[in-house]
Amino acid sequence: MDRQNFIKKAGLGLGVTAATIAPLSAASRKRFRWRMVMVVPKTLPIWGPGMLRFAERVKLMSGGSLSIKVYGAGELVPALETFETVKKGNVEMGHSAAYYWRGKIPASVFFTSVPFGMNANGMNAWLTAGGGQELWDELYGAYGLKAIPCGNTGVQMGGWFKKEINKISDFKGLKMRMPGLGGAVIAKAGAIPQQIPGGEILTNLQTGVIDATEWVGPYHDYIMGFPKAAKYYYSGGWHEPGSVLELMINKDKWESLGKELQMIVKSCAALTNQEMYGEWLAKDSEYYKKILSEGKTEMREYPLEITAKMHQYSNEILAGVAKTSPLAKKIYDSFKKFQSTYEKYQEVSEQAYVRAQKA
Amino acid sequence: MDRQNFIKKAGLGLGVTAATIAPLSAASRKRFRWRMVMVVPKTLPIWGPGMLRFAERVKLMSGGSLSIKVYGAGELVPALETFETVKKGNVEMGHSAAYYWRGKIPASVFFTSVPFGMNANGMNAWLTAGGGQELWDELYGAYGLKAIPCGNTGVQMGGWFKKEINKISDFKGLKMRMPGLGGAVIAKAGAIPQQIPGGEILTNLQTGVIDATEWVGPYHDYIMGFPKAAKYYYSGGWHEPGSVLELMINKDKWESLGKELQMIVKSCAALTNQEMYGEWLAKDSEYYKKILSEGKTEMREYPLEITAKMHQYSNEILAGVAKTSPLAKKIYDSFKKFQSTYEKYQEVSEQAYVRAQKA
Repeated sequence: MDRQNFIKKAGLGLGVTAATIAPLSAASRKRFRWRMVMVVPKTLPIWGPGMLRFAERVKLMSGGSLSIKVYGAGELVPALETFETVKKGNVEMGHSAAYYWRGKIPASVFFTSVPFGMNANGMNAWLTAGGGQELWDELYGAYGLKAIPCGNTGVQMGGWFKKEINKISDFKGLKMRMPGLGGAVIAKAGAIPQQIPGGEILTNLQTGVIDATEWVGPYHDYIMGFPKAAKYYYSGGWHEPGSVLELMINKDKWESLGKELQMIVKSCAALTNQEMYGEWLAKDSEYYKKILSEGKTEMREYPLEITAKMHQYSNEILAGVAKTSPLAKKIYDSFKKFQSTYEKYQEVSEQAYVRAQKA
Repeated sequence: MDRQNFIKKAGLGLGVTAATIAPLSAASRKRFRWRMVMVVPKTLPIWGPGMLRFAERVKLMSGGSLSIKVYGAGELVPALETFETVKKGNVEMGHSAAYYWRGKIPASVFFTSVPFGMNANGMNAWLTAGGGQELWDELYGAYGLKAIPCGNTGVQMGGWFKKEINKISDFKGLKMRMPGLGGAVIAKAGAIPQQIPGGEILTNLQTGVIDATEWVGPYHDYIMGFPKAAKYYYSGGWHEPGSVLELMINKDKWESLGKELQMIVKSCAALTNQEMYGEWLAKDSEYYKKILSEGKTEMREYPLEITAKMHQYSNEILAGVAKTSPLAKKIYDSFKKFQSTYEKYQEVSEQAYVRAQKA
């Protein structure tokens, strides 16, 4: 991989090379020494290394003007304090996903992924050219924050179940690890959604404390050991169809950077976005094949009776989010309108192509 | 859009702002004054403005160390001389699509899009994490060139037809504007593929010199005026399912940049990639709706009998490309293997999600 070459050649923490940009005198140059806190450990594959590479590259591109020290979840502050820590400016940057903050800002969910929302490409189109980024700026601006996309998991998987799910009533009493709006949706179907930290899910699934769990996709799910604990793997994660990861920055600090360094951060976030999504797709594809080849797992797809109901519950829940504030309504309307236009075109574009391929 | 704000604030050709990076003395700084030639006019929507913005941003991020003057097709050299011009180092950069060079390098097609190949996400995954970029480096390196992805059109549309296409024999004698491998595929079905410059397609279609044409997608097709000249619009462009645009750089010049400026170029290309693809999806969705609302166009999907045949012809043609050199074979094998693994996962991922949504 290109990045390995880069890391090899550049070395960690390398700054300026005289060959192209001569060093500035200390007095004539403003240097930013920033910190970034993450909501996941630095060791989480794809995600952690992606952000370490981001920091190295920003330092390289800025000739050392902007250096960022990356802290994994819990190293400096607990994961869920990321928002407040960056908001207060105690730390300049955070890496996260906006829906983690829905307790404070219900409409934040639209900037990660919502049940039956847009896939990764739709999210990119909305944020880039559909007014999404401007709405995100408005929403976060009120909290003294600025955020931009920086990574995407793609469509997540439906999850791991110990028993088959054949009808909507099979969700009654089902204890499933599913946080966020997805959890609220299955609760409407009678399930008991669980919020369990990553490190405890496998044991809970093995010992029967929970009956089912979702996580991310084949690669991360495999690493978690889920094929050892549940037999049925459900496809098509309607609860998170294209989760955008966010790079959040304290707004005053962001403005202090000036437009050159801002553009370096924006560009580097885009490169990180492109690479992380590419890696996720490549690794998930490889591990899906691996999971099948090991023969312990049976693939299932939710019956349409179930997804129809979940879709209806999701619509009710999103309509509820839209009622939380006038801005939430504006975001909801923009999102829904864009999604409708986008998906109608997808029907004659990506989906028509898939049909053509299968002929 | 964010970029409008950027352009407004930054101003065209703006270099350094003292606020963040103090100006360097002329003597202590190496300055690169580069030129870029494009295979399309600078005025072509999305594509042209995207590359002008790319150049402004690189200049901004590098504090003026790397400035790039952008020339549209024909301004400095004709479009199809881009490759030779950059190869010889007469101009440092080009913006193009690799399949334009298939006359010189047959395997170049795999780095843009091939009939029944991968969609935009698959191409990104292969290039990022599947060994694709390394193979591209090997292929172009022999010509003294380096190329990276910089833009994507997504799945193109099947094209505009004056008469309906119901069976494979309807292609017999059909004069269709379709360059590249797509043209070679329909030729196998008896069509007479035409290579016509953009500016002449509409007149040729209106006067009956040609019976059908493809171009890009709803946005660019609409601007070209095709709804005025042909009634049937075919979905799912199997001939170009996710065309990667390339930023090509003379390799010696690339190496002279040093790794800071190289990373600035790479990052900025990724931001351009993300934005162009986002804009293409947003605009194509909007114009698809517009085309339908105007009531002149009837949508059609190729019958499966036809796409099955086209798929078979495409496989034959790609197998032929693989025979042109040992490296072409290596690229073909890598591409096909990655595509197979990737698409099997897409079946339980994106496609399962689409089914869930339609319930």
